[in-house]
Amino acid sequence: MSNTRQEKDSIGTIDVPAARYWGAQTQRSFTNFDIGGQQMPLEIVRAFAILKKAAARTNAELGVLDQAKSDLIGKVADEILAGDLDAEFPLVVWQTGSGTQSNMNVNEVIANRGHVITGGTLTDADKALHPNDDVNKSQSSNDTFPTAMHIAAYKMLMENTIPGVTQLRDTLRRKSAEMKDVVKIGRTHFMDATPLTLGQEFSGYVSQLDHGLRAVNNTLDHLAELALGGTAVGTGLNTPDGYDVNVAQQIAKLTGLPFRTAENKFEALAAHDAIVEAHGALKTLAVSLMKIGNDVRMLSSGPRSGIGEITIPANEPGSSIMPGKVNPTQSEALTMAMAQVMGNDVAINIGGCTGHFQLNVFKPLMIFNFLMSARLIGDAARSFEINCAAGIEPNKKKIKEHLNNSLMLVTALNTKIGYDKASEIAKKAYKEDTTLKSAALELGYVSADDFDAWVRPESMI
Amino acid sequence: MSNTRQEKDSIGTIDVPAARYWGAQTQRSFTNFDIGGQQMPLEIVRAFAILKKAAARTNAELGVLDQAKSDLIGKVADEILAGDLDAEFPLVVWQTGSGTQSNMNVNEVIANRGHVITGGTLTDADKALHPNDDVNKSQSSNDTFPTAMHIAAYKMLMENTIPGVTQLRDTLRRKSAEMKDVVKIGRTHFMDATPLTLGQEFSGYVSQLDHGLRAVNNTLDHLAELALGGTAVGTGLNTPDGYDVNVAQQIAKLTGLPFRTAENKFEALAAHDAIVEAHGALKTLAVSLMKIGNDVRMLSSGPRSGIGEITIPANEPGSSIMPGKVNPTQSEALTMAMAQVMGNDVAINIGGCTGHFQLNVFKPLMIFNFLMSARLIGDAARSFEINCAAGIEPNKKKIKEHLNNSLMLVTALNTKIGYDKASEIAKKAYKEDTTLKSAALELGYVSADDFDAWVRPESMI
Amino acid sequence: MSNTRQEKDSIGTIDVPAARYWGAQTQRSFTNFDIGGQQMPLEIVRAFAILKKAAARTNAELGVLDQAKSDLIGKVADEILAGDLDAEFPLVVWQTGSGTQSNMNVNEVIANRGHVITGGTLTDADKALHPNDDVNKSQSSNDTFPTAMHIAAYKMLMENTIPGVTQLRDTLRRKSAEMKDVVKIGRTHFMDATPLTLGQEFSGYVSQLDHGLRAVNNTLDHLAELALGGTAVGTGLNTPDGYDVNVAQQIAKLTGLPFRTAENKFEALAAHDAIVEAHGALKTLAVSLMKIGNDVRMLSSGPRSGIGEITIPANEPGSSIMPGKVNPTQSEALTMAMAQVMGNDVAINIGGCTGHFQLNVFKPLMIFNFLMSARLIGDAARSFEINCAAGIEPNKKKIKEHLNNSLMLVTALNTKIGYDKASEIAKKAYKEDTTLKSAALELGYVSADDFDAWVRPESMI
Amino acid sequence: MSNTRQEKDSIGTIDVPAARYWGAQTQRSFTNFDIGGQQMPLEIVRAFAILKKAAARTNAELGVLDQAKSDLIGKVADEILAGDLDAEFPLVVWQTGSGTQSNMNVNEVIANRGHVITGGTLTDADKALHPNDDVNKSQSSNDTFPTAMHIAAYKMLMENTIPGVTQLRDTLRRKSAEMKDVVKIGRTHFMDATPLTLGQEFSGYVSQLDHGLRAVNNTLDHLAELALGGTAVGTGLNTPDGYDVNVAQQIAKLTGLPFRTAENKFEALAAHDAIVEAHGALKTLAVSLMKIGNDVRMLSSGPRSGIGEITIPANEPGSSIMPGKVNPTQSEALTMAMAQVMGNDVAINIGGCTGHFQLNVFKPLMIFNFLMSARLIGDAARSFEINCAAGIEPNKKKIKEHLNNSLMLVTALNTKIGYDKASEIAKKAYKEDTTLKSAALELGYVSADDFDAWVRPESMI
Repeated sequence: MSNTRQEKDSIGTIDVPAARYWGAQTQRSFTNFDIGGQQMPLEIVRAFAILKKAAARTNAELGVLDQAKSDLIGKVADEILAGDLDAEFPLVVWQTGSGTQSNMNVNEVIANRGHVITGGTLTDADKALHPNDDVNKSQSSNDTFPTAMHIAAYKMLMENTIPGVTQLRDTLRRKSAEMKDVVKIGRTHFMDATPLTLGQEFSGYVSQLDHGLRAVNNTLDHLAELALGGTAVGTGLNTPDGYDVNVAQQIAKLTGLPFRTAENKFEALAAHDAIVEAHGALKTLAVSLMKIGNDVRMLSSGPRSGIGEITIPANEPGSSIMPGKVNPTQSEALTMAMAQVMGNDVAINIGGCTGHFQLNVFKPLMIFNFLMSARLIGDAARSFEINCAAGIEPNKKKIKEHLNNSLMLVTALNTKIGYDKASEIAKKAYKEDTTLKSAALELGYVSADDFDAWVRPESMI
Repeated sequence: MSNTRQEKDSIGTIDVPAARYWGAQTQRSFTNFDIGGQQMPLEIVRAFAILKKAAARTNAELGVLDQAKSDLIGKVADEILAGDLDAEFPLVVWQTGSGTQSNMNVNEVIANRGHVITGGTLTDADKALHPNDDVNKSQSSNDTFPTAMHIAAYKMLMENTIPGVTQLRDTLRRKSAEMKDVVKIGRTHFMDATPLTLGQEFSGYVSQLDHGLRAVNNTLDHLAELALGGTAVGTGLNTPDGYDVNVAQQIAKLTGLPFRTAENKFEALAAHDAIVEAHGALKTLAVSLMKIGNDVRMLSSGPRSGIGEITIPANEPGSSIMPGKVNPTQSEALTMAMAQVMGNDVAINIGGCTGHFQLNVFKPLMIFNFLMSARLIGDAARSFEINCAAGIEPNKKKIKEHLNNSLMLVTALNTKIGYDKASEIAKKAYKEDTTLKSAALELGYVSADDFDAWVRPESMI
Repeated sequence: MSNTRQEKDSIGTIDVPAARYWGAQTQRSFTNFDIGGQQMPLEIVRAFAILKKAAARTNAELGVLDQAKSDLIGKVADEILAGDLDAEFPLVVWQTGSGTQSNMNVNEVIANRGHVITGGTLTDADKALHPNDDVNKSQSSNDTFPTAMHIAAYKMLMENTIPGVTQLRDTLRRKSAEMKDVVKIGRTHFMDATPLTLGQEFSGYVSQLDHGLRAVNNTLDHLAELALGGTAVGTGLNTPDGYDVNVAQQIAKLTGLPFRTAENKFEALAAHDAIVEAHGALKTLAVSLMKIGNDVRMLSSGPRSGIGEITIPANEPGSSIMPGKVNPTQSEALTMAMAQVMGNDVAINIGGCTGHFQLNVFKPLMIFNFLMSARLIGDAARSFEINCAAGIEPNKKKIKEHLNNSLMLVTALNTKIGYDKASEIAKKAYKEDTTLKSAALELGYVSADDFDAWVRPESMI
Repeated sequence: MSNTRQEKDSIGTIDVPAARYWGAQTQRSFTNFDIGGQQMPLEIVRAFAILKKAAARTNAELGVLDQAKSDLIGKVADEILAGDLDAEFPLVVWQTGSGTQSNMNVNEVIANRGHVITGGTLTDADKALHPNDDVNKSQSSNDTFPTAMHIAAYKMLMENTIPGVTQLRDTLRRKSAEMKDVVKIGRTHFMDATPLTLGQEFSGYVSQLDHGLRAVNNTLDHLAELALGGTAVGTGLNTPDGYDVNVAQQIAKLTGLPFRTAENKFEALAAHDAIVEAHGALKTLAVSLMKIGNDVRMLSSGPRSGIGEITIPANEPGSSIMPGKVNPTQSEALTMAMAQVMGNDVAINIGGCTGHFQLNVFKPLMIFNFLMSARLIGDAARSFEINCAAGIEPNKKKIKEHLNNSLMLVTALNTKIGYDKASEIAKKAYKEDTTLKSAALELGYVSADDFDAWVRPESMI
């Protein structure tokens, strides 16, 4: 018994693994693009399932597809969504830039699997569904792939990125509240500065993430626009009246997200600025998280010869050679992931700006990077929250030590004796390795009582 | 007579050019940072003038500064805004990362120029204004510089970027309307595809810019937040009650823009995510404009052996060796400028993510790149509009030739005879270098009458 | 029967899948870093196997490890290299930035598997090998991980990148030779220019790849330096005399590549400039391949309404809606992959520049991106060669048509009648849609005979 | 008297400022490209002067240009090189992507200034030199501009970048030697680790810069190739025999640099991979310098509550509000500049990969960014050396304090009592806030004598 069967497309016949539902076009792409190994993200496959089901329903409603065919397409789409057919989508990202073969992969699997559901076999000459004429009806790769991009991107943001960042934001806010009275030295230029509280320091992180989440939210509206209905070049050739609006509503219903048809389909095929724009918000979050990850790494440094003002959970042995070492590993994973997001941003920009005429052909690249970034941000923020942020505690001994030594408390004297004299005091204390107070008294610029009344960290915050 | 005078700061004395208003700290920075030659943008100097005036007014209102001193500061600020003192700001971008010396440059110039306005001379021991205690009152470099960043960035967006892009968008919209009936071949994958109109093609560009403008607008809210009032580390040390809210209102009044005090000053000093976020929108515009510039370049290619479907104005002799050559030079300038914006985005991301603790010290880098990008987008869009887009005309002869030759008109047959047969027709016509119609008839898949009725470019759009 | 067993490290005990060879530290990392899904590349695992074997041999030779233990380690290393233990390395890229847990993963698997080979079971209290004291002997994660990075990177360049690019370069060179007499119009600014041959055009691509290969070769010397022997911070603590030189020789012997010990181990741990530098060469290749891919895409455009001067193989049906369409899909895959490389470059730069003190902790990020890029370039170049470049043929009809129409042949007259008059001729011919010759004669600047003698494309190349 | 005169080119007549030497084409570009304000770098203008002189000499030698004309061109070229005509080159970077108008700017200025030198006036109808037929003889913008790019880039590297980095490298090497005996705590993951000497730490920086300089040197060979002689599309149309080789030799003689004619002129016009490759080395240096700048910033942090193991010169008052503050301002300028270089790298990549067919038209963008980066690296390294590195001193008190407290000295016990027991000691000491020795003795794992003999920082380096 043969392990392959023959499948046919407009190029000719080709051998396909006998047990697989995919057809000739999938097989050609699989053979012709042996590149890199990065598979087309399953989120895209699932998004295709949603849109194929929505298109079939709309086609049936508008009278251009049998209801039975529509139902059959919907049935296979549900199997895809349930994850039952994951092994049927073997193509890599590095294929045609329109994602045509991934669209055809879905069309072929739905057509063949649908036929088998109806009792047929894969080698039957006539099938219950035609991949192009039925499953792809009123569609083109050129409008389905960008539609799948927006569905997958939007869902990833809602289901992973935003919840992950929100979870971290909430924990940092709680930490900020818990530590609101811990007065500590501030640092500007990495140098000792005037004091603030640990709670205030953390409130800055909370504010960064609040703004970042708002930035992501601001980009959702463009992502909500769907290309479907534009077909080959944006004109909607071969679609029935009302199709574009209806199919977007179907997708909105199936996903529970506010998708709508794109006002301008020409843009929707030829450019993916919505992806570029939304990733611009993601890279903003990456910048914020890099800052937060670095601060936590540095604030927890030591344990003895660093800054050491907070402690973080010790989750793994830190070193294969240095016994007892503990490292800020969650900060490291977080900041590495954010560096990746910043790199991905450039790949997306290059892909986004290199489209020509009616079709951008960097689609798989763009969504591959987008989904990677969106997942990395959500996952890394969540991992950081669970395994690090939630366990942050102030190291009050170190904090106090640092605060009391600081020369920058002298700033409190500015409004009393002027910048120049205050400066003299600080410089003297530094040079002579003494305290501000003794330097101040020696210089005769303030009385001891005034110094004690004026230079009080807790009233400088 | 000496060409220098001595100025003093907490480090000691230093020679300063006798005629210059700047003081010791400006001179030190000038001497110590002989790097690159890129000057601190004048937009930042002007923004400083606005905020110094606003701070002086607020300080006077809140009773911590003499009204006369406040007025004097305001007077010099007005001179700076009028451009009268441009030569007094010699510092480069590559200085301290907090922009401290640029803040001090403004403080020193205002103090010294103010003193001269009151009749003093630059060598007087006592001055009418102290750069730190008066001009910088209730301020720190750490909150003034980010405030100047936001003022300068917001103004540039409103006065240059948005108007420039809007001007181009409007012209493209007009062109789209003018050419709404010019049916032409579409191109996907840079290959012949189904038809659309030139008007539709251009409507995609309009939609891209519409979305891009909306993206920029979405980021203004974060940019409207001002750090002023945070002073050294965000706590607002050494500011009178109500100062932060009031000074932001003063700045809003002086600029006519909706500035308000940042809710969280710790973020506002330690991170510049608003700049990162807004530049994320700018790079989205850059991606759009790169696409548009490339399309225009390619659509106008030829004149004889290219695509040549539009003509663009011939503004310069195109070649020093090829006589009579005309080139798409505005597309070239536009796309080069947009490549720069995409590079600047990375510089901004790196600067934005490398801040530590209470202060990001990549401030001058970030605003330098932001202002360069915002200006390049506005200027290049405007230049492209005036010198290219406004003069675009369809080349109807070429358009018709391309349209009539196209094999992709066969797509109209899909819904009549199915994808597979339609495909056979196209392939036959291509192989035999004949027309679709003769191939179709020869294959016997359609009648001549049906073919003529079904395959009509003007009904495929 | 339980599906887990207990393993122990300095943090405490933890459940591990009973059948897996990995130990407590691997399990902790697996649990604590549920991020993104990108696995530590198997190339790194294999490189670790090489270095563990080399270290064991060197340790035995220098008398600090039993020969039997050394042999046992080598045995398991060989199993890893044979791919028999691939399932034992479950960790993701986004872990500790030193890759410590991936080093420990290898240590634990070797120790446990080694013990089983000797007849023991995974639950024995005493094992034949200790992961730290034996397998990791004379090592630290801090020197092994960068050593694995260099081994994996060097091998990928030699085994995939360079051969792939060379294969494409050779085919382009052959095509260049085949087409050396096909005179065609040149294009500058995407506009018609003076002629050249298709062979000359392709020779430019060959030269780009020649230079690119040379650029990659120039960076190998730095990659040949190995960190091993530096241990924790570069000092070589806990290594026997001569260890670093010997172990590098062992690795050179095992790989057949010219590895040597790094002269400065402090750099080798704290910075990965060799990776940054080598990836700088890879991004240069990416830039070249993007150019080549774009040119092929555009030269083959059409088939009827584009430039169409070459034909490329038709490998897949091009469109799910447009029957008979063929697209430059290999160009698309190639250019998408190269956009990814340019994005990866930025991630590597950020990782490379954010190391602190004695250890860069963006190691997994850096090597993940490096290996992705190196593989993408090799794979995509090879795929492009096999499926596209090898089948490129000139479309002589189109080429002749374009050449004969060109107005830029006028350039040949510059040296005869001067640039200004030649310019007049070209402009007249363009405006009046006529030929150069008739315009020239009408203007009376040349005789018909002279024109024919002087304006000959085949002598302009 | 009019302030303008009329100039003419193939487009028509145009008003030009009466006193300026430039002609019609310069004026058109000046008018048509009111973008951004970044002027074409003077280094490019100077490089053009060199190549115009070289071309004129070669043309004369090969008998296609009068010796008198050649001499006259050389004379004006010398004036340009002397800086006497700087005001004559007003064009911006954002012009045609071939730099044609900057080539014509030079051609026009040389022609007109040459005519004036011979006693003519700018309004004479006939001139001593024709900008195209004489000054541009045997040239095109398409081969002159890339030649100017390579000349300017190579010179900048040799005259600024390499000397600047070498100066810093030498000082760091001297510091490394000076501090070779200062034993200090190491830090990995920003956490306390085993010791090394300050000299060893600095030796890593030296090694980074050594490698970086080597990387730059490796790219010079490609930069030495000159496009001149390729003219319009690389074929060398309108050049006399032997021109390309000879003119490159002339340029080599004039510059003292090993320039030679590019073997493949098609590449040399159509791609600027030599710039991409060389900038890849520059960004490697940027990564190194970012690391060094950050380490110095952090090592010098404090003065009281940071790491504080080195002191750096106090060059400016650090704060406008905090008296007496001193900041690592040179580190800040250096790291900002290096962030710029990393951004510029992306702009260069995008420009480099977006060329089409026979001509890359991102030339001005690419060289603008290259020269900015090369200068920033040289200038910033020099500034950092003079104002910071040369004055670095160890803070021995802090260093000793940190070293003695470190728990990671326990690593010395690994080879004596094994990793697990050593780990127990470190953890106990950390938890109980005691010393390693007392924890070790209490656990009974070593004797006091053994501990003292084995745990000695000075023998751990």
